[in-house]
Amino acid sequence: MHLEQISSPEQLKKVTPEELPQIAEEIRKFLLDSLSITGGHLGSNLGVVELTLALHYLFDSPKDKFLWDVGHQAYVHKILTGRQGDFPTLRKYKGLCGFPKRNESEHDCWETGHSSTSLSGAMGMAAARDLQGESYRVIPIIGDGALTGGMALEALNHIGNEQRDMMVILNDNEMSISPNVGALHNYLGKLRTNRSYHKMKDEVEALLKKIPSVGGTFANMAERIKDSLKYLVVSGVLFEHLGFTYLGPVNGHNLNELMECLKQADRTPGPVLVHVVTEKGKGYLPAETKEDKLHSVAKGYKLEESKLTETTVKKAGAEPPKYTKVFGDTLIRLAEEDHRLAAITPAMLGGSGMNEFANQFPDRCFDVGIAEQHAATFAAGLATQGMKPVLAIYSTFLQRAYDQVIHDIARQDLDVMIAVDRAGFVGADGETHQGVYDIAYMRCIPNMVIMMPKDENEFQHMLYTGHQFAGPTAVRFPRGAGIGVKMDKDMKELPIGKGEILREGRDVALFAFGTMVSTAQEAAEQLAREGIQARVINARFAKPLDTEIVDQLISEGMPIVTIEEGSAIGGIGSAVLEYVSSQDARLEVKVLGIPDYYVEHGSPEEQKKEVGLTVENIARTARGLTPRRRQRA
Amino acid sequence: MHLEQISSPEQLKKVTPEELPQIAEEIRKFLLDSLSITGGHLGSNLGVVELTLALHYLFDSPKDKFLWDVGHQAYVHKILTGRQGDFPTLRKYKGLCGFPKRNESEHDCWETGHSSTSLSGAMGMAAARDLQGESYRVIPIIGDGALTGGMALEALNHIGNEQRDMMVILNDNEMSISPNVGALHNYLGKLRTNRSYHKMKDEVEALLKKIPSVGGTFANMAERIKDSLKYLVVSGVLFEHLGFTYLGPVNGHNLNELMECLKQADRTPGPVLVHVVTEKGKGYLPAETKEDKLHSVAKGYKLEESKLTETTVKKAGAEPPKYTKVFGDTLIRLAEEDHRLAAITPAMLGGSGMNEFANQFPDRCFDVGIAEQHAATFAAGLATQGMKPVLAIYSTFLQRAYDQVIHDIARQDLDVMIAVDRAGFVGADGETHQGVYDIAYMRCIPNMVIMMPKDENEFQHMLYTGHQFAGPTAVRFPRGAGIGVKMDKDMKELPIGKGEILREGRDVALFAFGTMVSTAQEAAEQLAREGIQARVINARFAKPLDTEIVDQLISEGMPIVTIEEGSAIGGIGSAVLEYVSSQDARLEVKVLGIPDYYVEHGSPEEQKKEVGLTVENIARTARGLTPRRRQRA
Repeated sequence: MHLEQISSPEQLKKVTPEELPQIAEEIRKFLLDSLSITGGHLGSNLGVVELTLALHYLFDSPKDKFLWDVGHQAYVHKILTGRQGDFPTLRKYKGLCGFPKRNESEHDCWETGHSSTSLSGAMGMAAARDLQGESYRVIPIIGDGALTGGMALEALNHIGNEQRDMMVILNDNEMSISPNVGALHNYLGKLRTNRSYHKMKDEVEALLKKIPSVGGTFANMAERIKDSLKYLVVSGVLFEHLGFTYLGPVNGHNLNELMECLKQADRTPGPVLVHVVTEKGKGYLPAETKEDKLHSVAKGYKLEESKLTETTVKKAGAEPPKYTKVFGDTLIRLAEEDHRLAAITPAMLGGSGMNEFANQFPDRCFDVGIAEQHAATFAAGLATQGMKPVLAIYSTFLQRAYDQVIHDIARQDLDVMIAVDRAGFVGADGETHQGVYDIAYMRCIPNMVIMMPKDENEFQHMLYTGHQFAGPTAVRFPRGAGIGVKMDKDMKELPIGKGEILREGRDVALFAFGTMVSTAQEAAEQLAREGIQARVINARFAKPLDTEIVDQLISEGMPIVTIEEGSAIGGIGSAVLEYVSSQDARLEVKVLGIPDYYVEHGSPEEQKKEVGLTVENIARTARGLTPRRRQRA
Repeated sequence: MHLEQISSPEQLKKVTPEELPQIAEEIRKFLLDSLSITGGHLGSNLGVVELTLALHYLFDSPKDKFLWDVGHQAYVHKILTGRQGDFPTLRKYKGLCGFPKRNESEHDCWETGHSSTSLSGAMGMAAARDLQGESYRVIPIIGDGALTGGMALEALNHIGNEQRDMMVILNDNEMSISPNVGALHNYLGKLRTNRSYHKMKDEVEALLKKIPSVGGTFANMAERIKDSLKYLVVSGVLFEHLGFTYLGPVNGHNLNELMECLKQADRTPGPVLVHVVTEKGKGYLPAETKEDKLHSVAKGYKLEESKLTETTVKKAGAEPPKYTKVFGDTLIRLAEEDHRLAAITPAMLGGSGMNEFANQFPDRCFDVGIAEQHAATFAAGLATQGMKPVLAIYSTFLQRAYDQVIHDIARQDLDVMIAVDRAGFVGADGETHQGVYDIAYMRCIPNMVIMMPKDENEFQHMLYTGHQFAGPTAVRFPRGAGIGVKMDKDMKELPIGKGEILREGRDVALFAFGTMVSTAQEAAEQLAREGIQARVINARFAKPLDTEIVDQLISEGMPIVTIEEGSAIGGIGSAVLEYVSSQDARLEVKVLGIPDYYVEHGSPEEQKKEVGLTVENIARTARGLTPRRRQRA
């Protein structure tokens, strides 16, 4: 049997156990070939080939529920559940999603994207199953990195208490996206180095038989010592105290061991935690040895390591710098000038462009692991003592620290700058990762200052401005590269709450935020060719809004088009509407932003086009407002 | 020395150790007397009298940092830091805050209100201290309930890893607000019942000396057994695996034991966890025996238990039902009719009016402890399997599950109803607990349906409606009692996204949401007496907005006043503005809501008055719009 003949778990079950390693190799080859064309999460999927095979071989999806935490390691699962042929469209517009997707397959019972949700989802399924008198397996597969997320720990606490049947697979790949950190990680490390645990236990039991029988206060002592043997070397006691049966660690690339362990787990009632040790990038040397284990690869990566490096180097010189690069560089400049600066990342050191900062300022760089809530409030704690922390976080993950931003940072009016990366469309990661709500959800928070630069040069000035400002600020910036402007040598402080007029015009105002400024400028040029003079405003601040600029528009009776790469509900458009309304003015304001649905994966350009954040649509909207104005004039 | 002479920690230090128990008694008497007049959190403060005394006696606030998790147990700390005289104003408008407040005292270094933030804040302070070369103690005091909050667990993971000096006081009062639940709680219970741990250890060491010496593979075995002795009975191994030195459990009401233990902790480098067992309500029998340990008392509670009961009974009959009561009753009715309903609370069983539901439907009632994130995603998991979960949560705490609502519930379009309690002003709890952002932060989430009833009768219909609707819904409702309307016998389904016109009028429209509907009606009556005919609209839905009603207003050119008990930024007023703008209409819309700052404690009436959510201000605003309309007519 070969991989291409396997289009469902039923067919996989026809493979003999002896053939499974060969199927594993075919899967690896398929992944390498396929992702070299499309790009995608390579390392994590290479790491779970045997694990996924074992799960589908032994258990019965879709009746049994597999919940893939984070979900970018579900490619093997997708291959084995009939979606092999869709891989050429992986993470492309209208193509195969990079994460589990319920409307894609009955085998995808739980959608993920953000980490640490699988245990809670699994607890819900297990409770529903028991309430409904059903019987199926509930199997969340969670990485060691995701396990440090607070909600996963909350779920452990609940699952351990309720004692419902559930098999938690801890996929310990020794390496989450950033090198994993934290006490839990250290603990898992100790567990991994104690594989001789069972042998040891047998030996000690033999020893204990030699203890002379004693009476008095020593009665039962031997028995107690036996009970305590499970603690003799570092064992899974931490999980056992939380109510789990701990099994492992087991080698996640040895199919026999793995399947024996999973069978044992299946026979064990109540919640079981199976500690599976896997290697990210397993089977592909360049992936195994790269620091981030080729967590994610761009399409067109080469199978040979040397070429990979070459491509990377070549790319770096030719294009405008990425925003994360500007962020990382600016962070270093700010830290050189101000010893009060400290930077915090929740497990996204590389993704946030902070590797070099971490090298230069190890004492002031805190990777707290996947722990967004803690990251935010930890920053608040630093700020109470006169530090000036910078919290680097993706827009979509900031959602997880929302209460902490309100309650701990902004309410205490603390001097924390939030560098909100991946704001707006994120492209191939799709709907779970879109950074489209942050303007709306932060704008209602008192004390917050929210800004977004029009280009990478303004970005450094905004970071400088946020750092100088004594209070909570958020600088949001997009995924990807800048637009190629010249970078000023010196950073300068921008006035808080002040936008800038980039182009004068008397017919219509294009009030644009961040990434949309350059698009608005293009639209203005197009309109100018038609004889329509559009004033282009770089808003700079979603909060506080530049009311002076808006007052001027009101006094001129100028219609406004607001444009932002963010939810049209509650965004900067609403800010303008709210202000105009508060001034008893009656002005035509049209809001262009992201509409009220989840925009799926594709390129950012496709996503922008889909929702009308384009030169054409801006021009069309502005054009629609202009004749009316001219009529009135 | 007596309590009234102690106006600072310095003065407390002049008390002899022998006098401390007397001071403790005086504090208890002061709390009982003072809170019987003002109301406040009685039980938790009675529980920490000795602990707070010991901390201030041994250590040096404000140089040393005490971080009171949740913060409602900081009264004793306030008494000992010069604020005894302010207690008559406790939790009153412009009076003493019920939580730590930085602008109230230099001894309040960290503001709390929400739970589980203290460890992260402490980690920030400890890191800042070390970076700045300072030396002071950082001492977070966290309850066993708060410890189950995910962010606290994230912080443990970070603190244990970084190994900075910090003394975490685990105030294990065996009872968080609801009876505590979860595996961690069970574990702490085991720790508490094993106080003989040290004695046991000595005995076993003696026993081990009798083991005959053996060679070969058994070499070092005895030594290893000795190392493992700390695991012989249940010990703090869970915390030790996370990198903490565990001390305790110690009786939190025995000042000598407690101070000895704290001194030992102070001598221990790195992070120490001191497990202090306290009794909520200690020293006041009615508080000790009440199920919730008199967590919070209303002013005028009587010191004798019998009278307390009497007052409670009397009250229940006379006033309109509280919203939480209507919620609890309706939940039971819905559960009787539909076995798919399950209800979830994050540690607020009593506060959410769910005690009776829990009695009647124990299998379908889930108190997950302080774990809002897990609660939301657990609900999502239930819904994937065809259950119809109801998540009961306060508006302010829903902030902590924001990402879960976006990513797990709404994005998967799951059938979860969120019952958003304490929406709007919450009164005496003040700024940390105000439920004022939920409209804004939920309105931008695709798929969400957001409603709020005008009264307690409509509330039951909305709960019924939300339950019938197959998708995510949020029913927000205020703290406190209804307005006294007749309750319909049968529940009915309201059309989604449809408001109702309660009063016809041609001059101005009052577009009101939830609690503001009755206020708007009163304003309309006042306006009618002046000859102004206001149309009163009960919006019912913040999302989807009733666009038909707004279209009608547009076609009549009718000015609108929107009124909501929620942030004026991004709320229902913005929804109306956004819609009017999308329709190319130019209509006067004035938004009345909660302005852009943190509104402090006081009565809800005082808070509404402060921000202009009053009959007078609504009438005034409407009046301001009317003449212009008449001029145009």
